[in-house]
Amino acid sequence: MIREVCMVCGKERENIYEIKCSKCGGPFDIQLDFKYTDEIRANFPYIRNFVSLGEGKTPIVKKGKIWFKLDFLNPTGSYKDRGSVTLISYLAERGIRQISEDSSGNAGASIAAYAAAAGIEAYIFVPDNTKGNKLKQIEAYGAHVIKVKGSREDVALAAEKSGYYYASHVLQPQFRDGIRTLAYEIAKDLNWKVEYVFIPVSAGTLLLGIYKGFKHLLDSGVINEMPKIVAVQTQQVMPLCAKFKNINYTPPAVVTSIADALVSTKPILLEHMVKVIHDCIVVNDNEIINAWKELAKMGLLVEFSSATVYAAYEKLKVDNAVLILTGSGLKTL
Amino acid sequence: MIREVCMVCGKERENIYEIKCSKCGGPFDIQLDFKYTDEIRANFPYIRNFVSLGEGKTPIVKKGKIWFKLDFLNPTGSYKDRGSVTLISYLAERGIRQISEDSSGNAGASIAAYAAAAGIEAYIFVPDNTKGNKLKQIEAYGAHVIKVKGSREDVALAAEKSGYYYASHVLQPQFRDGIRTLAYEIAKDLNWKVEYVFIPVSAGTLLLGIYKGFKHLLDSGVINEMPKIVAVQTQQVMPLCAKFKNINYTPPAVVTSIADALVSTKPILLEHMVKVIHDCIVVNDNEIINAWKELAKMGLLVEFSSATVYAAYEKLKVDNAVLILTGSGLKTL
Ligand SMILES: [Zn+2]
Ligand SMILES: [Zn+2]
Repeated sequence: MIREVCMVCGKERENIYEIKCSKCGGPFDIQLDFKYTDEIRANFPYIRNFVSLGEGKTPIVKKGKIWFKLDFLNPTGSYKDRGSVTLISYLAERGIRQISEDSSGNAGASIAAYAAAAGIEAYIFVPDNTKGNKLKQIEAYGAHVIKVKGSREDVALAAEKSGYYYASHVLQPQFRDGIRTLAYEIAKDLNWKVEYVFIPVSAGTLLLGIYKGFKHLLDSGVINEMPKIVAVQTQQVMPLCAKFKNINYTPPAVVTSIADALVSTKPILLEHMVKVIHDCIVVNDNEIINAWKELAKMGLLVEFSSATVYAAYEKLKVDNAVLILTGSGLKTL
Repeated sequence: MIREVCMVCGKERENIYEIKCSKCGGPFDIQLDFKYTDEIRANFPYIRNFVSLGEGKTPIVKKGKIWFKLDFLNPTGSYKDRGSVTLISYLAERGIRQISEDSSGNAGASIAAYAAAAGIEAYIFVPDNTKGNKLKQIEAYGAHVIKVKGSREDVALAAEKSGYYYASHVLQPQFRDGIRTLAYEIAKDLNWKVEYVFIPVSAGTLLLGIYKGFKHLLDSGVINEMPKIVAVQTQQVMPLCAKFKNINYTPPAVVTSIADALVSTKPILLEHMVKVIHDCIVVNDNEIINAWKELAKMGLLVEFSSATVYAAYEKLKVDNAVLILTGSGLKTL
């Protein structure tokens, strides 16, 4: 039996309606009590029927000395689909018919698509000034968009208290757990020897999910060493780098960086995030724009937030690096 | 030695600078003198180094009774990448450094991306009223966009006479030949038994390319029967259906259908196209919009031109159908 325990106090999750730990408010995590298997879906024993849109098994290509994992080629244009397929499949099997979520970006679009595929009604809560292609994408999948005045926290609270099942991509452990597949694929693609992995970090879903996947491979004896995870943040949103490097950091009142998918100035999982990284690199908007252009001129069209990893790589220039390209540039043309 | 021969008069192609047959003006085709092999790249013996962006191996998903081949999840968001990778790799090996192409749509974007990846300068000729995301995508890859006044034919002529090597996705046999991989993948995905395949048809590149792939599998003894190809066209652009069903058809002065990737009112390969289809279905804009909405509500976000196949399927309702979804909806949000 798979256990879900609070990442802060260790209390066991009582049922799917306990979104945060009732004792301490912490997020839950799914404990893995089995070894990795090459039959990928068997690594998610808590799901019987996958509501799939063809996620995962994204291409990896080598350009010069760098491996690029093209996770923006997932069905809705971002790596989030790896988390949505596990969370939504899990909820659908448990009879959930209506969900809420707060995200005006890739997570919202991904949750909306998988909810549609599962026949679940999705209510996506967004800040009232939201516009652009990602919102249009959310609406295209038939999700209900609910605009909320106030801060990001207000939007999250509205989703949580909506009365619909709160399918938060940040809190729900089945979402974060789904990101494990990304680690499995990269490790297999590189013949089980991965040295450096560059990822953009915002709320920590990608970071903690991919770390968990590599750790699972290590614990299963499939890889011999943990890859070194290089987290990448922006000058405006760098709580992890600040904590990791003991730098003073005051979040701006409003985040205006072009890397608009990287917005978590106070991630709730920060204590965990800082423990799993090898390094943390801060990049600024100019560096991001240049990196974006260079990627596009290699034929790789991503969103600005995803180009951060290439900007960071240009600073670090290590050998044997995999850069994860997380979000499609087609949404931001 | 691979031979390239004129599809009309059978004359052999003299060199890569003979774009159309010098005797009769016909397009060339690559003759396959080898059996299919599961090592996919070995089926393209005229290429040594693939300039890859991770194209192909797109997901296939089953929804109800229908298989959907998600070819819009190719690197630049359309099936065209299968043709671009073969054509551009081929040209790069032969020392071509500057190319021209005429397309303001998916083909232009795809050629631009692969040219960028190969270090080839691309000059993309488009009608002077072109705008929108596909044009922005072409520019993002660093291609030069050249706007031309006049008809579509004028644009093509400008590209052909530009002085750059004319890498036409319609005429160049290496482009059409690259589409074979789509047939290989579908056949393998469905355990070598494919009955109906629905595809949108414009210039005929997809149709003739996929037919050639299936024919290759048949001639190689890998499949026992040719799949039945159902071509789908729009009310405004239906030269193939008209010819196939002996219907009178006068192209409109201007094509205004929302299926804006389906524009070839007089495809040069029409004589060949009519010979390889099982049926041809005409759909109108209302049917396309409804089909697009239904697909989106399954979590499949495509462009209108790609939704045509679902509209056609709804009319035909055959068992054992594969619908090829050709272009990403992210470009048209
Ligand atoms: Zn707790
Ligand atoms: Zn000829």
